Amino acid sequence: MNKNSKNLRVRLPALIFILELIIVILYFCFVTYDDQTNALLQNKTLPLENSLYQNYTFFADIQMMIFIGFGCLLAFFRRYGFGGMAFNFLVATFTIQWAILVQGFFQFCYDWKIHLGVLNLINAEFACAVVLISFGAVLGKTSPVQLLIMALLEILVFSVTEWIVVHYLKINDAGGSILIHIFACYFGLGVTFVLYRPSLNEGHSKETTSYQSDLLSLMGTLFLWVFWPSFNSALTLKGDDQHRAVLHTFIGLSASTITAFALSSMLSKNGKISMADVQNVTLAGGVTVGASVDMMISPAAAYVLGVLGCIACMLGYKYLSPFLARRLRIQDQCGIHNLHGLTGLISTFAGICAILVASEEIYGPSLYQTFAYRAPPEGDPHLAELQKLIPDLQAGLGRSAKEQALFQLAALAGTIALSAVGGLLTGLVLKIPFLAAPSDEQCFDDELFFAVPPDYNCVNGPQDVWSYVLKDTSKTAEPE
Amino acid sequence: MNKNSKNLRVRLPALIFILELIIVILYFCFVTYDDQTNALLQNKTLPLENSLYQNYTFFADIQMMIFIGFGCLLAFFRRYGFGGMAFNFLVATFTIQWAILVQGFFQFCYDWKIHLGVLNLINAEFACAVVLISFGAVLGKTSPVQLLIMALLEILVFSVTEWIVVHYLKINDAGGSILIHIFACYFGLGVTFVLYRPSLNEGHSKETTSYQSDLLSLMGTLFLWVFWPSFNSALTLKGDDQHRAVLHTFIGLSASTITAFALSSMLSKNGKISMADVQNVTLAGGVTVGASVDMMISPAAAYVLGVLGCIACMLGYKYLSPFLARRLRIQDQCGIHNLHGLTGLISTFAGICAILVASEEIYGPSLYQTFAYRAPPEGDPHLAELQKLIPDLQAGLGRSAKEQALFQLAALAGTIALSAVGGLLTGLVLKIPFLAAPSDEQCFDDELFFAVPPDYNCVNGPQDVWSYVLKDTSKTAEPE
Amino acid sequence: MNKNSKNLRVRLPALIFILELIIVILYFCFVTYDDQTNALLQNKTLPLENSLYQNYTFFADIQMMIFIGFGCLLAFFRRYGFGGMAFNFLVATFTIQWAILVQGFFQFCYDWKIHLGVLNLINAEFACAVVLISFGAVLGKTSPVQLLIMALLEILVFSVTEWIVVHYLKINDAGGSILIHIFACYFGLGVTFVLYRPSLNEGHSKETTSYQSDLLSLMGTLFLWVFWPSFNSALTLKGDDQHRAVLHTFIGLSASTITAFALSSMLSKNGKISMADVQNVTLAGGVTVGASVDMMISPAAAYVLGVLGCIACMLGYKYLSPFLARRLRIQDQCGIHNLHGLTGLISTFAGICAILVASEEIYGPSLYQTFAYRAPPEGDPHLAELQKLIPDLQAGLGRSAKEQALFQLAALAGTIALSAVGGLLTGLVLKIPFLAAPSDEQCFDDELFFAVPPDYNCVNGPQDVWSYVLKDTSKTAEPE
Repeated sequence: MNKNSKNLRVRLPALIFILELIIVILYFCFVTYDDQTNALLQNKTLPLENSLYQNYTFFADIQMMIFIGFGCLLAFFRRYGFGGMAFNFLVATFTIQWAILVQGFFQFCYDWKIHLGVLNLINAEFACAVVLISFGAVLGKTSPVQLLIMALLEILVFSVTEWIVVHYLKINDAGGSILIHIFACYFGLGVTFVLYRPSLNEGHSKETTSYQSDLLSLMGTLFLWVFWPSFNSALTLKGDDQHRAVLHTFIGLSASTITAFALSSMLSKNGKISMADVQNVTLAGGVTVGASVDMMISPAAAYVLGVLGCIACMLGYKYLSPFLARRLRIQDQCGIHNLHGLTGLISTFAGICAILVASEEIYGPSLYQTFAYRAPPEGDPHLAELQKLIPDLQAGLGRSAKEQALFQLAALAGTIALSAVGGLLTGLVLKIPFLAAPSDEQCFDDELFFAVPPDYNCVNGPQDVWSYVLKDTSKTAEPE
Repeated sequence: MNKNSKNLRVRLPALIFILELIIVILYFCFVTYDDQTNALLQNKTLPLENSLYQNYTFFADIQMMIFIGFGCLLAFFRRYGFGGMAFNFLVATFTIQWAILVQGFFQFCYDWKIHLGVLNLINAEFACAVVLISFGAVLGKTSPVQLLIMALLEILVFSVTEWIVVHYLKINDAGGSILIHIFACYFGLGVTFVLYRPSLNEGHSKETTSYQSDLLSLMGTLFLWVFWPSFNSALTLKGDDQHRAVLHTFIGLSASTITAFALSSMLSKNGKISMADVQNVTLAGGVTVGASVDMMISPAAAYVLGVLGCIACMLGYKYLSPFLARRLRIQDQCGIHNLHGLTGLISTFAGICAILVASEEIYGPSLYQTFAYRAPPEGDPHLAELQKLIPDLQAGLGRSAKEQALFQLAALAGTIALSAVGGLLTGLVLKIPFLAAPSDEQCFDDELFFAVPPDYNCVNGPQDVWSYVLKDTSKTAEPE
Repeated sequence: MNKNSKNLRVRLPALIFILELIIVILYFCFVTYDDQTNALLQNKTLPLENSLYQNYTFFADIQMMIFIGFGCLLAFFRRYGFGGMAFNFLVATFTIQWAILVQGFFQFCYDWKIHLGVLNLINAEFACAVVLISFGAVLGKTSPVQLLIMALLEILVFSVTEWIVVHYLKINDAGGSILIHIFACYFGLGVTFVLYRPSLNEGHSKETTSYQSDLLSLMGTLFLWVFWPSFNSALTLKGDDQHRAVLHTFIGLSASTITAFALSSMLSKNGKISMADVQNVTLAGGVTVGASVDMMISPAAAYVLGVLGCIACMLGYKYLSPFLARRLRIQDQCGIHNLHGLTGLISTFAGICAILVASEEIYGPSLYQTFAYRAPPEGDPHLAELQKLIPDLQAGLGRSAKEQALFQLAALAGTIALSAVGGLLTGLVLKIPFLAAPSDEQCFDDELFFAVPPDYNCVNGPQDVWSYVLKDTSKTAEPE
């Protein structure tokens, strides 16, 4: 087989079947039911108190974001709709299966078994979102073989990072601004840095949208927008924390949305709104509230975070992304650095501020539930007093606000480092021959990997049709 | 700046930034957490009993209706898809932010603060639906600057009306037939009356659909249809009231749907079904059950209401709308008077009938929960007897069925008056120059306010392409 | 009226109005509220314990599958999008109304009334799914009059079959692999066998997709995929059974999805992925886990079932469907035999295996809840011992695992027999003249029954446009 061949006929099935074999063997050996799904443990519990009912809505909402939201959003290229939507489908599905194993090993494992329930699925969905965000950096420039390998490696690096920041550094990041967005961003940038294609800096003839693809992509944005409150609140504490997370996410997204329309018009010479801005920049607020989404930051602060995130994201699209492409060899296809990196950084620092000002005056004794590691350690008399107010309060590490803030910073630095290095190494792996990587001309083109329908060559209207006419009528005039 | 200029580059950002500044200042001064979202008040409550869990599903479902349902439905014009979907996004987002404040002032305000929880968001969503329905009357004929101003003013008038009919007149209207649908309809008609464009009565070349836009719009209809039970039941009492509201809405919509197909075929010379009917008239049943949706009207009555609403709506589209346009200068772009006005009137009278026949034989003591103002007043011995059966029954106003019915009529009259006058005045405001209103030729055209993709001029197939061919080949023959 | 006329102007309204009259009379006479929706019975219950809250999410999710999932999936033909989406809308709506009555008679009837609550709606949704699956066998080849008659008769046969297998044979089939998928498949094949059109075996010019229709159809697949866990778990026992059903469905679908991409590429000469495979075969896993979805089969087994179902489904599309069409006169338009028949058979046998190995060692005393008919009968001392562990355990029939397995086989045989015979007879009914059946040339063409927008004749790009050019320029060269 020619190492430059793009024929997937052997490579894709071979890779998938090998991965499936590994997965099913590992599932068979190591994956079992947790105590909410094991029939053997149910005769003492009330069925309607099963953890399924507390989590199912959030699980299903995030599924909508992953498969339909991302799927439609990534279908914005006029001739890469199949690649965007179907590869998103393939990669997301594989990623969640794989993450159930890898995260399961780190977080849900005892007695030599990974115990499976819907909460594992939610965690795996978060990991999947990471991979799909990174996918945005290389959209249209990779083969499905490369994408599956990227997902395989990214989940490994992500799960290690997750264990470090959540279980070792023990940070607060309910909406995943550090762990999801920043990780995904710098990993993706690492990959795209290695996969740099100089000729693409001049643009590419198929790197445009069509009227229908723009509408489809906007629909994807709307699905992400509508369900983002579920995403940001899925892993908070139940009760008022989760309720605040929903409110803050909604407010933050609202703010970034109208700001995006304003800036899009303002930064355009003829004042016309760009659909790319409506598809991407409107979502910035969902990221910027992420790290403080369950804290008592006030609705006004959530609003301001939405506005700030939008401004940073828009300026990034207009000025930073071109700079990164030309000067630093980082071709960030979907501008993930603007929507997830810059906003993630803003969110992290907002979270740190929120942590620094958090006190018992604002939160009451719930402070030590939301900030679990600030709870007094076992044996501390303050713990006993608090437990009179909140009987099931867990002992913590007795961290001060400043200490917690420092851990957040450590997590940020560690995440950026691990993700960037992981991305670079993964990019090197993806450069291995025989992975069916498209040539420069073949990028952004469904015809490379999909059987396309008969009208494929007319998905852009008169230019394409005109070429047929011209061939035959030998006219030289171009359409207006 | 030329007062006829359509360049949004200054006006749109200026308006949005001013609005945002006002909103964030008001949020900072006046919006705080309610007792379900304030961490300080949680140490005595069970997290899983937080009001979030009773309301979140309905909140998210109505979000789907607003952003995706309306967004796709309003994208039916072949060249106004961006305007329909993106302006819906912009207006809905601004409206909910603004309604949180205005409704908050009327309904959720104590101790000089608006107390925010997910219930506020649901109420704001209802207000947002009002604005989006009114938007349908002027779709394609306004600028986003005009739309934001319309939303700003409409929410003010709406919130006053809401306070009057819900809290002062104290009516029963769980599905919002009077308050949402009738208000939105007559407000929108008031606006469009003032914004009358005589030349549009002859039709407009871009006032057609395309094959894809018709499918997209039908998808929007389906989203609205699927989640309408959540909309109609979101603000009923919990329990059997909400359960009935779900059933009635489903049955009403089912009935209007199949009736719509029947009438569409029957009223068409060649028996062919019109997609506009499938997109709009099928939804009539959701409105007609609205005012009585939580009452014991019987499933058969819900069915009949669905059929009646559909017939009225269809006849409205076929005969009334053209009449309103030609004789009364009311160019109702999406036919909102048929889908929301006529059906809202039917619903109101159905609600009055249901109120008149309601009795303790049918409802048992729950009568005084569903019809809270019919409960005996404080001190009445009948109240004490009822409270033995329903311990948490609240005292009411002791209204008779006839009295309640009269209040419903008063609310209807008041709503129509306030909304129509509000709409007319708002229309006058929207005629102010410098609001970038499109000229007649520029209506229904995304190119005015959006940067359009390269294939924009071929979104209608051969007519457009043919014109390119003709220019160059100087052929005179037209395509068949 | 010409018996070959396709004009729906009289027939469709006549049929719909007659059906509506029957339905509303039957609703008036026989349909009332159940004890969760009747206000008269509420003063002793807690509102938040209303059965609505346990079922509403699942009801709404399956609505999404029915109206949006199926609606988009069936819109894959380039010129039958309206037919696919709108006829799906019409048929689904009618079917649920009708199923409420027919299933209500069999399952929810006492005191001469059908007692209505949201659980009836969920059961009716399942019945609706049956009809929509069968619709897939005849998509594009029938009129809406024929479809409504098919739905009318299919629900009758289905409800009888449902009563037999669920209430008489008393089988375990939580995900409906036997009752829904196998029934729907063989009924649909029976219909299409009778409605055989020899000339369609050579293909049909409009039997292709377009770029946009392929994307729309894939979106439908994604909606079905995301909500399938709700479908498979909607009628399980609450608690761990439902939790397992969600997990197994997710795992099964994941496995079949990635396997589908692998096989699609592998079985294609140039290794290119077929969108038809991505739209259909990826869903196979949801069916194959169906019969054992609430059992303790292990996550690995769910994975394997997903892979097996996918392989069977793909081989069916590639080899069996063409064989059925050419040799057995069964033109299975959407390949429902692959996605529902073959997979349903695999699921049934997997369910039988799971039943045979089920024991108290694996399930504990919950065994007799999941397999209710294996519980000891009234009076059996073993029942009393079990009831000490599970106080509300119901008495059963004392069946052994082998007996239960035999009943499953009996149900399979009975379902295939009843559905096939029912389908054949229904097919004969559909051949009655005056039902506006399309001629062979008129198949797969929206223009027959819908008023189409101006760009309808250019929905396939250059071929169509080129024909315009050729007519006028008299060129002979074809586009590439």
